[in-house]
Amino acid sequence: MNKHHHLLLRGASSLTVSLCKRSGPTHLPPARPLFPSSGAGGTTTAAAIVSNFFSRHHHSTLTSPHHHLPKTARMSTTTPSPVDLIEQSKRLAAFQSVTAHLVPFPSRTRIGIGSGSTVIYVVEAITTLVPPATLSTMTFYPTGAQSEQLIESAGLNLQYINKLPPGTLLDVCFDGADEVDPNLNLIKGGGACLWQEKIVASSSKKFVCVADFRKMSPALGTMWKKGIPIEVLPLAANRVLGELERMGSLGPKVRPGLPGKAGAVVTDNGMWIVDAPFRPLRVEGTSDKEKGEWQIDELADALIKIPGVAEIGLFYGKNGNQAGEGGAQKPVEAYFGMEDGSVKVLSA
Amino acid sequence: MNKHHHLLLRGASSLTVSLCKRSGPTHLPPARPLFPSSGAGGTTTAAAIVSNFFSRHHHSTLTSPHHHLPKTARMSTTTPSPVDLIEQSKRLAAFQSVTAHLVPFPSRTRIGIGSGSTVIYVVEAITTLVPPATLSTMTFYPTGAQSEQLIESAGLNLQYINKLPPGTLLDVCFDGADEVDPNLNLIKGGGACLWQEKIVASSSKKFVCVADFRKMSPALGTMWKKGIPIEVLPLAANRVLGELERMGSLGPKVRPGLPGKAGAVVTDNGMWIVDAPFRPLRVEGTSDKEKGEWQIDELADALIKIPGVAEIGLFYGKNGNQAGEGGAQKPVEAYFGMEDGSVKVLSA
Amino acid sequence: MNKHHHLLLRGASSLTVSLCKRSGPTHLPPARPLFPSSGAGGTTTAAAIVSNFFSRHHHSTLTSPHHHLPKTARMSTTTPSPVDLIEQSKRLAAFQSVTAHLVPFPSRTRIGIGSGSTVIYVVEAITTLVPPATLSTMTFYPTGAQSEQLIESAGLNLQYINKLPPGTLLDVCFDGADEVDPNLNLIKGGGACLWQEKIVASSSKKFVCVADFRKMSPALGTMWKKGIPIEVLPLAANRVLGELERMGSLGPKVRPGLPGKAGAVVTDNGMWIVDAPFRPLRVEGTSDKEKGEWQIDELADALIKIPGVAEIGLFYGKNGNQAGEGGAQKPVEAYFGMEDGSVKVLSA
Amino acid sequence: MNKHHHLLLRGASSLTVSLCKRSGPTHLPPARPLFPSSGAGGTTTAAAIVSNFFSRHHHSTLTSPHHHLPKTARMSTTTPSPVDLIEQSKRLAAFQSVTAHLVPFPSRTRIGIGSGSTVIYVVEAITTLVPPATLSTMTFYPTGAQSEQLIESAGLNLQYINKLPPGTLLDVCFDGADEVDPNLNLIKGGGACLWQEKIVASSSKKFVCVADFRKMSPALGTMWKKGIPIEVLPLAANRVLGELERMGSLGPKVRPGLPGKAGAVVTDNGMWIVDAPFRPLRVEGTSDKEKGEWQIDELADALIKIPGVAEIGLFYGKNGNQAGEGGAQKPVEAYFGMEDGSVKVLSA
Repeated sequence: MNKHHHLLLRGASSLTVSLCKRSGPTHLPPARPLFPSSGAGGTTTAAAIVSNFFSRHHHSTLTSPHHHLPKTARMSTTTPSPVDLIEQSKRLAAFQSVTAHLVPFPSRTRIGIGSGSTVIYVVEAITTLVPPATLSTMTFYPTGAQSEQLIESAGLNLQYINKLPPGTLLDVCFDGADEVDPNLNLIKGGGACLWQEKIVASSSKKFVCVADFRKMSPALGTMWKKGIPIEVLPLAANRVLGELERMGSLGPKVRPGLPGKAGAVVTDNGMWIVDAPFRPLRVEGTSDKEKGEWQIDELADALIKIPGVAEIGLFYGKNGNQAGEGGAQKPVEAYFGMEDGSVKVLSA
Repeated sequence: MNKHHHLLLRGASSLTVSLCKRSGPTHLPPARPLFPSSGAGGTTTAAAIVSNFFSRHHHSTLTSPHHHLPKTARMSTTTPSPVDLIEQSKRLAAFQSVTAHLVPFPSRTRIGIGSGSTVIYVVEAITTLVPPATLSTMTFYPTGAQSEQLIESAGLNLQYINKLPPGTLLDVCFDGADEVDPNLNLIKGGGACLWQEKIVASSSKKFVCVADFRKMSPALGTMWKKGIPIEVLPLAANRVLGELERMGSLGPKVRPGLPGKAGAVVTDNGMWIVDAPFRPLRVEGTSDKEKGEWQIDELADALIKIPGVAEIGLFYGKNGNQAGEGGAQKPVEAYFGMEDGSVKVLSA
Repeated sequence: MNKHHHLLLRGASSLTVSLCKRSGPTHLPPARPLFPSSGAGGTTTAAAIVSNFFSRHHHSTLTSPHHHLPKTARMSTTTPSPVDLIEQSKRLAAFQSVTAHLVPFPSRTRIGIGSGSTVIYVVEAITTLVPPATLSTMTFYPTGAQSEQLIESAGLNLQYINKLPPGTLLDVCFDGADEVDPNLNLIKGGGACLWQEKIVASSSKKFVCVADFRKMSPALGTMWKKGIPIEVLPLAANRVLGELERMGSLGPKVRPGLPGKAGAVVTDNGMWIVDAPFRPLRVEGTSDKEKGEWQIDELADALIKIPGVAEIGLFYGKNGNQAGEGGAQKPVEAYFGMEDGSVKVLSA
Repeated sequence: MNKHHHLLLRGASSLTVSLCKRSGPTHLPPARPLFPSSGAGGTTTAAAIVSNFFSRHHHSTLTSPHHHLPKTARMSTTTPSPVDLIEQSKRLAAFQSVTAHLVPFPSRTRIGIGSGSTVIYVVEAITTLVPPATLSTMTFYPTGAQSEQLIESAGLNLQYINKLPPGTLLDVCFDGADEVDPNLNLIKGGGACLWQEKIVASSSKKFVCVADFRKMSPALGTMWKKGIPIEVLPLAANRVLGELERMGSLGPKVRPGLPGKAGAVVTDNGMWIVDAPFRPLRVEGTSDKEKGEWQIDELADALIKIPGVAEIGLFYGKNGNQAGEGGAQKPVEAYFGMEDGSVKVLSA
């Protein structure tokens, strides 16, 4: 263990967990949920976490050399509840993602912060792991009202994406997803914030996805059945619905606003959301439009060009490693908290 | 039951209705819900209606010292479910309100149509009772997306309130309410459409409220506990919350958009909704601000002047009988479907 | 062919146009401007038109009885002013476009109506040429507030594009442009209504462009120097500006709202407009991005995918003849009022 | 009293103003315009200012070392142009207002910054007069995009009014006006930002108005002839126009967006602006509605209650000295740069 790791561990007084090789052991402090969130750690105590951490079998698709994980399991002597396990693994996933992508915590880092229950733990990880003097030089860019509140509650420096000077990029962005396929294509937009989320993600040098196991999917549309969220100009909603049906979408619908609002959900941008279900999207190859089966890139290209469509909830194409000057939508890595308390990492 | 009433009930099959001009028993045709609506007539058949309705002595003038209600219910020989009874009474209330305020169905009438489960029956009443040739000359003005759909589904002539020429008024407007006090002050805005609703109501010569018994209240704030809906400019939300607390509101909050949208509900006008609970509002007298007890007019006057407030969900002040040239917010009458299958009418 | 036709053809020489091919000479009734419009007929009186134009043999395709036209030409004995000539030619262009694309005036036609000074004459042509009984069955869909007012002033049936049922199309759409290249690619958006205009155009079976000679251009960016109008989400404006500069745009700017509004123009959709000048766009071939020279389709494809861009003012790709089921952005024909009083027609 | 002071007082004759009372003569450093602004100092050089103004004894409360000022007046030997004089007087007005209301520059002051050509000098005064260490603790709240840019260009700490915690107030707000009457009632909204401006002003302990002599008026509506700017929900525009005419407004109109936008100006809040001219408003007494003559408070009360009106451009009622807990709209003082180079001050 080098000095850096030592430093990290010194700060990690109460809890030393060896998580993975990439960034040294990760400090997991007692759970301190910043946000009220259903199921987010209500029963997760520090003790439970200590007793439940573990080593895991690395998923076979994680072929990158830097993801060699510990081979021996340290099993708990007590049996945690499934909810405990998931929350622990989400928290662990968040800490790992921060360790992997923020160490050695350079000053003046610009960080995008998305929403979702796992992102709450990302903020916890940042406030826990980054030395305060460094943290005070960092700036955090939210993807919407929820993450704005998260940033402010944590006492971090808030800034808006429209203040990012032309030509500059965020260093990294952490955000969740509604579904992730093996090639790191995403569906996002369950919270109707997809437009801002895509702007923040594509304004970042790299986008890191954090989520739980339910978001892992062999093909988009398999786990997330509600459809691809599409942000549309209200006066074009009917026209877009017709176009989507012609393209093979199975029952696209304008998302309703109830119980808080009669009629359609209105986004923060004054648009409506159409949820457009498609058959599971092909990760590779080409589309077979006769069968209503689309390859992701082809579908996304077609959707974004429909007049009336403002933005789509497919995050596709390049990732930050491939697109030198920003504009990438896909994450470079995705961290999933698993049912068994472990973390799975998908790398581009 | 006299012959006339018998005829009415027997003759419910067709459309030859003598409605006793203003206030007599109302013809109720078989239920034909226009809209899918939870509990709205799912189990209500024509037979059930025939067996459950009753004739009542309608108070001789609906305008006289109000609230003389029928003293004897003639109950059905079978026992309808409570849900049936309520739906029947709401439907009856709708038919009575249309009979009272649209007969003799003048041509070219301009009618405002609000939202709410009872308004669905108002549209049914209009399409049932108005002769088709006359109906085709009438124009219907919605208060929002939901009532727009209702108007279109019924095949009625749709027009928007912004097309009403300056200086003209709608002849009548039918809309629901979230709470109604004995002086016909209202709370509206549970569906986040209060701004449009107030514009339509105050653009009408008279506003007729239709609702069910749960909306009747001795004082606003008694039955509707969520607070007075207030439409605010998002950047002023914090400021308005502070002002409301200073005025005695008990825990005002920005209405959340979940599950369809993370963060706040955004209205069709791009605003947020603050729900501001107050102690039950005094119908008469003056406010005792020390105790946080407000008289309605005084509270409304104070709320509407808070910078950042676009519109408030209190409908107060004059009604259409009092305000000669429009601008009135209060209904001239309110019709309530009661739990026992009867209809109660509140007149100004 | 009389002298007039000779004139027309002479003006159209470079563009392989035969006006007569389709619909023959067009009847021009006395000028009756519907709208106050600077330069739109300020000096054009009925007498001037009578004296400057001519009567012509009505083409056989105009079979309606009320189109019996005078048989003798009354030639001008005075010299019209240049302004007169342009207005006359714009009016003639409008009448020709309507004759070519609406005859034989089928009932229940759905027609999109855009904005611009030539479109005013399109509406005049429609109200003049279409038999009243047929006209009353037609429905007109505006692209914005200006054309909405135009439709209403003319007493035509107004309908909104969001009411077009999914899967149906407008029969034809008439709209102007800020610049037209020889392949009928367009720049639109000078009035900040490009998003609605593209939705209406691409919802039409065919889009017919009407304009004056100043809009004809060998390559987009030659005549219209202000830049391609791009509708952007305000919070992404900086990011889009940076991206545009990286793509070679020469000084893209957010359009200011003065004198009516401090800060940026806000569109009817709540967006901002970025005007992005590029070197003249290549009609064919491929882009040379090193030189900042773009081929239209490639540029448009790149622009529309920038996160934060809602819609772009390039109308490109297919036209209605090529795109069977709608979605085309390019006109099938463009009619230009020329400086010399003639009309030039560009056909796809 | 030297000649300059005499001039100042002479100009202030009717308004019982003593500039010296509060803060004494103000130091005016060389002109350093922060913003490009037509007429704002184009011909105003440091030399011109030195030659035209004077050095004065710095008031003792300005104790910071960098405020050592020249002790001898250097009187002008040349004649300044009228434009010079006005710009100088506006700048002087700004410096005086800052001296009067910010000295002794407490730390952590929260300051609202409006827009207008005189406010530019307010920002210059603040950056010049406030010691840097103190300045870095101050926070500045803009009233719109223009003042946001002004704050950022000056390198000041920007914050948004929606971040002001409930229950707290800005310490002071500096903003311009379109017209000011002797009782410090204002018309604002020429730049279509009146809603935000009123929110910021009424969120301040005191509002200080800075402007030039053209905004001084015996009665609102005398100098500013375009009408009272009223921010309205677009779908209510017609209805509001009708109501305004009924109230005696002389030709109220929706403000057009040209040249940048066809149709109406859309505000940053998605509203339209109606400009409603009234006969000059009575500062005191009551309205004579028959004659269409209104007293300000009565008119404002009537306007704000019209359904469809979001906010009005009348700033009226209490000022910050009268309203203990915020909510005041009127300034406590107004500073005017006069034609003759002097400053006039109106105090509540």
